Amino acid sequence: MSWILAQAKVYIDDAFHDGYVKMNGSMIEEVGKGLPHVGPDDEVWNVRGAFVLPGLVNTHNHTPMTLLRGLGEGEPLKRWLEDVMWPREAMLSEEDVYWGTLLAQAEMIESGTTTFLDMYDRLHVIFEAVRLSGMRAVLARGMIGSEDPSVEAAKLKEAEDVSRRYHGALSGRITMMISPHGAYTCSSAFLKEIIELSRALSLPVTTHLAETRQELLTVKKREAMETIPYLEALGLFERPLLVAHAVHLSERDRETLARYDVRISHNPVSNLKLGSGIAPIPDLIRRGLTISLGTDGAASNNNYDLFEEMRMAALLHKGKEEDATLIHPNEALRMATAAGARALFLEHVIGKLAKGYRADLIIVRSDGLPYVPAHDDVANLVYNGRGSDVLGTIVDGRLLYWKGEHLTLDTERIRYEARLRAKRLA
Amino acid sequence: MSWILAQAKVYIDDAFHDGYVKMNGSMIEEVGKGLPHVGPDDEVWNVRGAFVLPGLVNTHNHTPMTLLRGLGEGEPLKRWLEDVMWPREAMLSEEDVYWGTLLAQAEMIESGTTTFLDMYDRLHVIFEAVRLSGMRAVLARGMIGSEDPSVEAAKLKEAEDVSRRYHGALSGRITMMISPHGAYTCSSAFLKEIIELSRALSLPVTTHLAETRQELLTVKKREAMETIPYLEALGLFERPLLVAHAVHLSERDRETLARYDVRISHNPVSNLKLGSGIAPIPDLIRRGLTISLGTDGAASNNNYDLFEEMRMAALLHKGKEEDATLIHPNEALRMATAAGARALFLEHVIGKLAKGYRADLIIVRSDGLPYVPAHDDVANLVYNGRGSDVLGTIVDGRLLYWKGEHLTLDTERIRYEARLRAKRLA
Repeated sequence: MSWILAQAKVYIDDAFHDGYVKMNGSMIEEVGKGLPHVGPDDEVWNVRGAFVLPGLVNTHNHTPMTLLRGLGEGEPLKRWLEDVMWPREAMLSEEDVYWGTLLAQAEMIESGTTTFLDMYDRLHVIFEAVRLSGMRAVLARGMIGSEDPSVEAAKLKEAEDVSRRYHGALSGRITMMISPHGAYTCSSAFLKEIIELSRALSLPVTTHLAETRQELLTVKKREAMETIPYLEALGLFERPLLVAHAVHLSERDRETLARYDVRISHNPVSNLKLGSGIAPIPDLIRRGLTISLGTDGAASNNNYDLFEEMRMAALLHKGKEEDATLIHPNEALRMATAAGARALFLEHVIGKLAKGYRADLIIVRSDGLPYVPAHDDVANLVYNGRGSDVLGTIVDGRLLYWKGEHLTLDTERIRYEARLRAKRLA
Repeated sequence: MSWILAQAKVYIDDAFHDGYVKMNGSMIEEVGKGLPHVGPDDEVWNVRGAFVLPGLVNTHNHTPMTLLRGLGEGEPLKRWLEDVMWPREAMLSEEDVYWGTLLAQAEMIESGTTTFLDMYDRLHVIFEAVRLSGMRAVLARGMIGSEDPSVEAAKLKEAEDVSRRYHGALSGRITMMISPHGAYTCSSAFLKEIIELSRALSLPVTTHLAETRQELLTVKKREAMETIPYLEALGLFERPLLVAHAVHLSERDRETLARYDVRISHNPVSNLKLGSGIAPIPDLIRRGLTISLGTDGAASNNNYDLFEEMRMAALLHKGKEEDATLIHPNEALRMATAAGARALFLEHVIGKLAKGYRADLIIVRSDGLPYVPAHDDVANLVYNGRGSDVLGTIVDGRLLYWKGEHLTLDTERIRYEARLRAKRLA
């Protein structure tokens, strides 16, 4: 028995075509133009001209921070981070982490994200939340260095334990990455141990890189070397690697990233909001790098709507470089789908509507006024699409959300718990 | 008999307070915190914690271009304009203008805009559409120069006629401005005549200014002067003036604009999309200039959601100047409301919730997941608000839209007509 979404505008080969998607269990069985062949046991949903496309992929997030969004607005970055965020993150209980990540996941599900990367701690809690939500997730225990070697050792041990336990869990819905927080927050010795762990476990690495000018100065002062040559010397780039931000890069840095095929998580909204800067994305694309999209945590965004990130990526660089031909809408949509999959080393699993891929897809209404006229469907979706246009979200062939209703999460309870916990944190 | 919106989060003095708004006819009668006094004949709507704020003001638009959105995506600016837009604009019939502006107005109404400025031609058609929609509008007959003096004379005559006929019409819902298209598209002689017309009619002027580097070069070549000193010498700045874009400004230009209290329509999305650049808004604010927001026509945006413009204004300059303290959410919300009113010379009429102002206001749901937790209502609205969160739109005390239903416009017919006409234009 197959489940067929019919009479859809289906995203095939960078364009929308009238057609259908057939799912069987957790897999995509067939994608085609026109009308499907329907077997006697097949279930057919007529989606009446709605867009059907791969679920969006958010490649950089810290979901429990959702409880902190709106705190310290307008403060300078250093004070926001040191006086507002860090003291409150230190207060987050396991229950806070649980309800914070559930709020984030509910928000992602209803705005069309099917896969997210979470860099945080207490991953056993986040794992339980992902089990419940039905999303696909890449979990990475973010490790910040410590003066105390036993603290670092405990973090490494924890990262190893959760990685062994969860990699491939929930029928493959969970994969793991190893995550040093950043070059400026980990010592060389700690970074080496982390790289070694990733090698021992055969897992990719994800880290923050070149988000702010300040962090690059910190490393330079400490190591008497620029950050990227320093990380190259440590062997980081020999690991499969996803870096978040990549805002401040020299010519040579860019060459290095391209040479090692480092995957990029472009977080345009967060980079703007925190005053970090604007990443040189068109140049990185010219060099052949894989550019995916991330929201970062809600405290610096302040939401998880990847349509907004897509639109920002499509608009920002045209204006910055004064060239309207940069980042075509097709390119922006690819960033949020196929490139997102590649950034998470899941390019053979998700990010594309084709036989043999996991059935992770979203159904988006195309009948709102901003979609009229339909001269260019991809442009309409990228420039006018909003998370609120999402009608349905499917992961592994399972419907998680349909027309305003969550099928896996109790959003009333989540709202209640989040409000309650946020009060204490304020 | 008054109409009371109660149990709202009401925007008073730059913050949201639990309170109410009382309307009587087309006017705001009372705004207060806590619970209202309810008379026996009053109608009370309990909006259950929704935001109530002044209707958003879009200070730069060309609404009939809605039929062209999505055409020529990714083309360089010159080709997009000359080969895609202009030939098709020349094809627009009066009926096209009518249905195009109605589509734009329906979209604005449902995304929370109550007042818009329209710079276009065939204003008698747009006037009829505004009469029908119930929106507040500032209409300006955009005049491009011609080699043929009789064409210019006819445009001036038309601008004069429509200005005399419509200024103050529909119980004041319509006001008029005089509009030379731009310094680069009008000769000195034509500009002088236009300025003279605005003086004779005692109407403000609106024009495009410093949108692209190219237009500044055109003027310099033609007049052997920089654009802004040239316009100053022509006496333009002695008129009450609203300029759209203001992207490329020298130090001296900025001083000039500030000295004359020129009102600015900041169009960040359009400026990015067309590759025009990023306006120096934080500096213009420091100089005391009034910064309002505009979407520009849909072909360069591609929508009329002012929440997006607000968010872009709040984010973009932080990133460009690498300073997270720039453009506080309060400032962005002011741009879309009170500053919008001032930019249109309507600051005593709209843009504020206070006794004696027109009852132009919107009701916005505050219960979506991105609004949880409510650490900072203004930040939640500016960074997370979407046009689709608008529950209700009121102009002159009249409900135009409520929970998905338009009360003045037949959106099915509009959709049908827009699609039909767009096909011919493609």
